[in-house]
Amino acid sequence: MSVRAGIVVTGTEVLSGIVADRNGPWLSERLRERGIEVAHIVIVGDRPVDVRAALEFLRSCDLIVTSGGLGPTADDLTADVVGAFAGRPMVLDGALEERILAILRRNRARWRSYSEEAMRAGNRKQAIVPEGATILEPVGTAPGLVVPPRAGDGPTVLVLPGPPRELQPMWEDAVGTTALRAVLDRAGVLEQRMLRLYGVPESEIAQSLLAIEADGVALDRLEITTCLRRGELEIATVFDPSAAPAYDAFAAGIRERHADQLFSEDGATIDEQVAGLLDGRAIAVAESCTGGLMAARLTERAGSSAYVLGGVVVYSDEAKVAFADVPAALIEAHGAVSPEVAAALADGACARFAAEVGIGITGIAGPGGGTAEKPVGTVCLSVVDAAAGRRLDRTVQLPGDRAMVRDRTTTVALHMLRGLLG
Amino acid sequence: MSVRAGIVVTGTEVLSGIVADRNGPWLSERLRERGIEVAHIVIVGDRPVDVRAALEFLRSCDLIVTSGGLGPTADDLTADVVGAFAGRPMVLDGALEERILAILRRNRARWRSYSEEAMRAGNRKQAIVPEGATILEPVGTAPGLVVPPRAGDGPTVLVLPGPPRELQPMWEDAVGTTALRAVLDRAGVLEQRMLRLYGVPESEIAQSLLAIEADGVALDRLEITTCLRRGELEIATVFDPSAAPAYDAFAAGIRERHADQLFSEDGATIDEQVAGLLDGRAIAVAESCTGGLMAARLTERAGSSAYVLGGVVVYSDEAKVAFADVPAALIEAHGAVSPEVAAALADGACARFAAEVGIGITGIAGPGGGTAEKPVGTVCLSVVDAAAGRRLDRTVQLPGDRAMVRDRTTTVALHMLRGLLG
Repeated sequence: MSVRAGIVVTGTEVLSGIVADRNGPWLSERLRERGIEVAHIVIVGDRPVDVRAALEFLRSCDLIVTSGGLGPTADDLTADVVGAFAGRPMVLDGALEERILAILRRNRARWRSYSEEAMRAGNRKQAIVPEGATILEPVGTAPGLVVPPRAGDGPTVLVLPGPPRELQPMWEDAVGTTALRAVLDRAGVLEQRMLRLYGVPESEIAQSLLAIEADGVALDRLEITTCLRRGELEIATVFDPSAAPAYDAFAAGIRERHADQLFSEDGATIDEQVAGLLDGRAIAVAESCTGGLMAARLTERAGSSAYVLGGVVVYSDEAKVAFADVPAALIEAHGAVSPEVAAALADGACARFAAEVGIGITGIAGPGGGTAEKPVGTVCLSVVDAAAGRRLDRTVQLPGDRAMVRDRTTTVALHMLRGLLG
Repeated sequence: MSVRAGIVVTGTEVLSGIVADRNGPWLSERLRERGIEVAHIVIVGDRPVDVRAALEFLRSCDLIVTSGGLGPTADDLTADVVGAFAGRPMVLDGALEERILAILRRNRARWRSYSEEAMRAGNRKQAIVPEGATILEPVGTAPGLVVPPRAGDGPTVLVLPGPPRELQPMWEDAVGTTALRAVLDRAGVLEQRMLRLYGVPESEIAQSLLAIEADGVALDRLEITTCLRRGELEIATVFDPSAAPAYDAFAAGIRERHADQLFSEDGATIDEQVAGLLDGRAIAVAESCTGGLMAARLTERAGSSAYVLGGVVVYSDEAKVAFADVPAALIEAHGAVSPEVAAALADGACARFAAEVGIGITGIAGPGGGTAEKPVGTVCLSVVDAAAGRRLDRTVQLPGDRAMVRDRTTTVALHMLRGLLG
C-alpha cells in the first residue's frame, strides 16, 4: 500500500527568498528512504490562513511534516494552526515549560542583556501544545510534536522546528515514537540507486532511456530522475525491491552506452572517489581563478587533513612566482592563463608542499578579463602525480557566471585527478 | 489592490531532495520587488496529476509562475499540463521548432555522438505550446510561455525553464510582454529595506519589536521578517510607500537598542562593506581550518583581483612554518590552534604577500580533533593592518557541524576586518 506525505515549510524568510530552504529536500530524502512517496513540498509564509490552506491542500495525504514556526516570536504559529487543523484544543504543558526554561537559562550566558522575564514571555508559548500530541524534546529550545488524527481519519502531522540542526536530530527522535511509527510502518521500504556520469548531455540520456525501454527493459517499474548537478549528470532511481531485475537491466544498458562517462554506480561522489584513489598520498593545490575553492572542496571532507597538505591562492602574477615557482618568463611568454602556467602551478604545488600529487588552476572566471582569444570561462588545469611522473592537462571553456565557472572548475579538476590516479 | 502570486517548481529531482531549488526563492524576490504578494511556493514532482493539483491549489491567485519541466525528456510535461489547466489546446509552432533546431545544431559541436535524429525527436515537443500563449524565446533550448486566462477569468500562468541561468534572463524578457504586464501593472510597487545585525540572538530582537510597538510605532503597517543567516541576523521589511514614516521610526528603534550590533542599514552585506573599507588596500590570507574558504569568500566578488593578492592554505604544521613563517617553536609551545599561531599566520600572510592587511585563521572544524580544553568549534582568528600597526584577535567557540564551523568562521573574520578597518 502506498503511503503519501506532504511537507509544509513555513517562514516568510524562506517564502520571500531571503534564506534558502534546506528542510524540504532533507525531509523528502528521509521519507523516500522509508518508502513514502512525497507528493508536494509547500513553502508558505507566517500567515495562519496561508499555513492552514497548505495543510488543507495536503489533507488527503497520510502524513504531513511541517518545519518552522515554533520559535518564541509572535509570527511563530505552526503549533496553533496544526492544532486547529487536527481539531485539537491547545493546552499548556507546565512540565514542558519548565524544561524549556532550564535550557534557556543554560544558554543565557552566551548573550548580553537578556532578562529572565524576556525569556519567560517569549517562550511560554512554546509549551502550549495540541491536546493528545506526542512531545519531541527540544534540541534547541523548541519542542516538536507528533499530532495524530482525531478519529483515525486524516493525516498524522509531524511538527518540527526550522533550524536544520534542530530538525535533523529531532526527526530521528520522531521515528522512534509510537504515533509516527503508526504511519511509517504502513510503507514498504523502497530501494534507491544512483548512477553518476560526467561529460554527457541530458538529451543524450533521454535517448538512451528510450532505447533501453525499446530493448524490453521494464522502466515503468522504476522511478528514474535525471538531474544535472555541478557539471555532472545524476540518474537517481527508486524502485520496489521486486523490480531489482529491471533496475539491473537498466544499469547494464547505461553502462554499455556510456562506458566512458559513467563514473559511479554505488552512490560515491567524485570527491569520495578521489579521496579513495589518493589512498593517503599527500596533495597540494596552486590555484588562481578558483580563489581557494579547490582547496576548500578537498578539505570539506572530515579527516582530509591526513592527506591535504594545503594550497596557495595565487591571484597576482607576483604570487604565482613567489609561492608556486612559476617562472616570470613563462607568464610573460604565454600569459597567466595558459596551459604552461597551469602545469607550472601544479609542479610548484608539489615541490613547495613536498606533495606527491599537485593541482594547478588558472583561468578567467569573469565577468571581466575575457578576450576574444581567451573568453570568460576559459580555464587551464593541470594535475600531476610527481612520484609516478604522470601528468594530465586540460583547457576548458565553461558556461555560466563567475560563481558557476569557479564551481565547475573544481569538478573538472576532480575528474582529471580520477583519470590521473585511477 | 493586492495582487497575489503562487510559484510552482516542478521536477522530481527537486522534490526528492537530489538538487536544491534556487528558482522558487529567486522568483519570490522578483515578485515582491514588484509589489506582488507571494502566497505559496509548491514543489512538485514530474507527475501530471500532481502538477495539475498544484495549479488548482493556486487557482485563486492572479498569477502562477512555474519553473521546470520544459526539457526534451518524456518527464517534462509542464506545457501540456498548463495548457489543460488554462483550457487551451496544444498546437505545434513550426517556426519555433526551426528556431530550437538551429540552437541545437550550434550546441552539437560540444557533444560526441549526438545525432540530428536524436535532436529532432527529443526536441519537437518543446515547440508544442498552448494556443494563444505568448512565446518567450529560448535562452537554452526551451522556450518559455505566458499563458493568459481563457475568458479573463483565472490566473495568468508564466511558464519558465528550470535551469536558473535560463530562467533568470527569461524572466526579464517576460516582464516586457503585454500578456504579463496586464497582471504585473495591477500591483503597486512596495518598498523593501534590510537591516543586518551581528552578535544578537533572535529572541532579543523579538523583545525589541514588542518594545518598539509599545512605543507607538505602527508595526502593523510593516511586513517584518527576521532571519538568522550565516551567523548574522537579517531584518527584512516590506511596506507600502505610505508607511515610510512607520519604517523610519522602526529603524530608529532598532538603531537605538542595538547600536553595537547593527552593521548595515542600506542592504550592504559584510562582504561589500569589507571590500569598501579596504578601498584598494591589498589583502592576503593564511588559513588552516577554513581550508581555502576564506580566500574563496574574498574572491567571490567580481574585481576582487584588484585587492586580493592571494592566500595560503596551511593545513599541516610544516606548511604553517614554510608558507606563513610561523615559528615552529610557537606551534610547539601553544599548539597549532592558539591565538599566538593565528597572529603569526596573519603577520605571515602580510609579509609573504607584501599585503597591507592580513588574516590568520586556525581552528578545529571537526568532527575529530577536539579536546576538553579546545573542543570542536574552537577557532582562533587574527586580523592585522600592517601599515597602521593595528591588530584584532579573537578566539570563538562556534556551534554546528564541520561545514557550519568553516562557514561561520569566514563571517567572524569579515566582522573583525570591519572593526579593524572601520
